[in-house]
Amino acid sequence: MYPQRFEDLIALFEKLPGVGNKTAQRYAFALLEKDGEQINDIASTLVGIKEIKRCRICGFLSDEDECSFCKDHSRNPSVIMVVANPQDVVAIEKTGSYKGLYHVLGGLISSSKGIYPEDLNIEKLLNRINENTKEIIVATSPTMDGEMTALYLDKILKDKQVLVTRLAHGLPMGASLDYADDLTLIKALDNRRKIESE
Amino acid sequence: MYPQRFEDLIALFEKLPGVGNKTAQRYAFALLEKDGEQINDIASTLVGIKEIKRCRICGFLSDEDECSFCKDHSRNPSVIMVVANPQDVVAIEKTGSYKGLYHVLGGLISSSKGIYPEDLNIEKLLNRINENTKEIIVATSPTMDGEMTALYLDKILKDKQVLVTRLAHGLPMGASLDYADDLTLIKALDNRRKIESE
Repeated sequence: MYPQRFEDLIALFEKLPGVGNKTAQRYAFALLEKDGEQINDIASTLVGIKEIKRCRICGFLSDEDECSFCKDHSRNPSVIMVVANPQDVVAIEKTGSYKGLYHVLGGLISSSKGIYPEDLNIEKLLNRINENTKEIIVATSPTMDGEMTALYLDKILKDKQVLVTRLAHGLPMGASLDYADDLTLIKALDNRRKIESE
Repeated sequence: MYPQRFEDLIALFEKLPGVGNKTAQRYAFALLEKDGEQINDIASTLVGIKEIKRCRICGFLSDEDECSFCKDHSRNPSVIMVVANPQDVVAIEKTGSYKGLYHVLGGLISSSKGIYPEDLNIEKLLNRINENTKEIIVATSPTMDGEMTALYLDKILKDKQVLVTRLAHGLPMGASLDYADDLTLIKALDNRRKIESE
């Protein structure tokens, strides 16, 4: 019912994750308010993402061959944290309490989604481990796929002379004990620690 | 933390109505999966909306000077339905039970938002009413602004030789009576009709 160009725009927005027809229409009308110059700016920002690559070392997003983390010599090169996606790197960085390097797998091993180790950025991880590497922190989510990926990585890193660790599982801070699920409670109990007064 | 081009893309999505940082990131990552050609297609669809105009008669969206409704001679030109936005035209059309013409105001009179009659597409409405025009259906929403706009239109259309009507207010179909608000119930009672068996 709308002009074809407008229907095309709505169809475009409908392809974004979780966007239905009503929301797509709202977005399209919001764009319609922009003037010609603003539209051109938006289009060139869009075309600009064709220049975004994966860092050749760790797989994080980068404008250049190597990302800002891999190029940063102030970071500790003896620790590599392995994560599923670029978003995870940003989540960890925001805490400000990690100063090592990263390695982005580009997903998790998943039998249900048909993702196998060879589909992930694992070979480059093995190649970058050298005599200076002391620890690999496997920071995959505590889900079925995340656990499977962690176990796989632990297995193939066995013969490397590195410590392989995993993020701690337990009660999330601020959570109410009686709302925690059984599995989380079991993990929290298993991994209990001596209280250390400072 | 992401490369600048990617941050720019996220910032772009964040400007869409109701989109926060997390959702903007999801959208940006979805676009990152597209190849160069798909990105070009998206950009050209985007630039294409610069060609979308308002119909010079009714104010609906159009690729040309006149929209598909105003150009359609099979429609009844003696009835004009006045709506706030292009979306309302589409909502009415979807019912398939209206065959007259439309007039899109481009908003509603609103003292809180500072929108006055002169900001709306009202003058063109007055100009297009002629001796063939029999009825103006004011189809604004039953909100404060919608009612105000309807009253204003009724007033300025007084001296034109046309019937001015308003969409019926009452219980929405399928609604439960005990969940209806007082105002809706009062309207439904005031506007009660004799049951006509066919």
